[in-house]
Amino acid sequence: MNREQLIGLIKQKRSFLCVGLDSDIDKIPAHLMGSDDPVFEFNRRIIDATIDFTVAYKPNLAFYESRGLKGMQSLHKTMEYLAKFQDKCFTIADAKRGDIGNTSTQYARAFFDKDASGFNFDAVTVAPYMGEDSVSPFLSFENKWVVLLALTSNKGAFDFQLFENQQGEKLYSKVLQTSQHWGNSGNIMYVIGATRAEMLAEVRKLIPDHFLLVPGVGAQGGSLSEVARYGMNKDCGLLVNASRSIIFASKGEDFADLAKKEAGEMQLEMEKLMKAQGII
Amino acid sequence: MNREQLIGLIKQKRSFLCVGLDSDIDKIPAHLMGSDDPVFEFNRRIIDATIDFTVAYKPNLAFYESRGLKGMQSLHKTMEYLAKFQDKCFTIADAKRGDIGNTSTQYARAFFDKDASGFNFDAVTVAPYMGEDSVSPFLSFENKWVVLLALTSNKGAFDFQLFENQQGEKLYSKVLQTSQHWGNSGNIMYVIGATRAEMLAEVRKLIPDHFLLVPGVGAQGGSLSEVARYGMNKDCGLLVNASRSIIFASKGEDFADLAKKEAGEMQLEMEKLMKAQGII
Repeated sequence: MNREQLIGLIKQKRSFLCVGLDSDIDKIPAHLMGSDDPVFEFNRRIIDATIDFTVAYKPNLAFYESRGLKGMQSLHKTMEYLAKFQDKCFTIADAKRGDIGNTSTQYARAFFDKDASGFNFDAVTVAPYMGEDSVSPFLSFENKWVVLLALTSNKGAFDFQLFENQQGEKLYSKVLQTSQHWGNSGNIMYVIGATRAEMLAEVRKLIPDHFLLVPGVGAQGGSLSEVARYGMNKDCGLLVNASRSIIFASKGEDFADLAKKEAGEMQLEMEKLMKAQGII
Repeated sequence: MNREQLIGLIKQKRSFLCVGLDSDIDKIPAHLMGSDDPVFEFNRRIIDATIDFTVAYKPNLAFYESRGLKGMQSLHKTMEYLAKFQDKCFTIADAKRGDIGNTSTQYARAFFDKDASGFNFDAVTVAPYMGEDSVSPFLSFENKWVVLLALTSNKGAFDFQLFENQQGEKLYSKVLQTSQHWGNSGNIMYVIGATRAEMLAEVRKLIPDHFLLVPGVGAQGGSLSEVARYGMNKDCGLLVNASRSIIFASKGEDFADLAKKEAGEMQLEMEKLMKAQGII
């Protein structure tokens, strides 16, 4: 999916919600556990319940890899199911990959090249530590995106991401400055955590046009209105992720209904925020 | 495998060779392509040919993930085969993972918890960008190791790893300083590329005891004697990786013989270097 299509989808759905399919099998409602593939069944019902309010789905690979081949089968089935909604949602493999150049090319095939791997994600999250040649192989795929880690929402973000040089430039800022030239605002997005929304203002000075994938709203405590205030640009420029607060809103038989309610409430709030900024 | 066992293995085999199973299906000898699982067949023969000279095997996940479920099946079969040599080699999942705490726990299960995922690696490579809570979940598994990226051997290593603070401390050095306290020399190793062997001397000032996993010898141009000169400690403290120079030494029917020859030559050189330093 290209940038124009993504912006179109956001305006059409009046939403910039990304639902994180962190489908931990230990948290899945008991009544699904008898089915052949409980995680796929869970994901399918979550998708059906939330698709009207959701611009992007983001399965985190860890929750699938932890179950070995069975887990990867659940993910393949989930992505085949999502292919039915191909022009109606954007898909992000939250995999945080990155390796030396020829190896990153293999990772790019793993997520983007359906003929090679079976997966056809629109985007993949990538860690910046190994620099340009670890990122650029992903950028050679047309209409595919890198979502590069810049400032994450976890406690450990403070360990290295705020490391500062003599000019007062922080590492995450150096990552933004440097990497934006490896691609463009049509194939690179950045992860910027919502737990420090005021830093979005600093980020926007460096990269006014790029999309930001913002985790940390909901279960991790970030505020949607603060994110919009500091992070929204004229094209919206945001994908705000919620995982547990939506997919595990209930652990009972009503899990899909509750997920729909939560996603619907976020969509309504997002619609208001976009209207207030004249985007729709 | 614990530190004592690893050191024992190195002394017994008179080798600190790690063979990278970067088994790119496009480079596998043609005569194997008719078998049910060419990549597994290739790996099995490489292992048989090199096991006497090799302390560790390190499949890079990218080369398996790029082939989807089939690729992961090849890797599972390879690891089942390596389990036959359980006390005779150390295994490293070169996966460069890392995510927020609860998610890294899932990645740890993916590589360390055989009951959950089918994999039972001794170690996994982890990227440090997201800080302590992205690394520490891996350290709670007994006799398992994190191999943390510090200074890699690729061109992009210069982009961020040498980013320097006001005191002249570089990012990779900050990573070493900070992360060594998250675990100890019995459960953390570091990736330090051989392409700048003289920097190993600086690294050894900070972490005299930790094992270093050193890529970049062979196809990438680093020198084994330089690595030993600057990086070896009293327990050896090194695993030097070679991938392409061994596994793709020949693309013909003699690939296993040539791999054996290459690995044997490296083992001999390593034996000399260990003897010179009084380790064996």
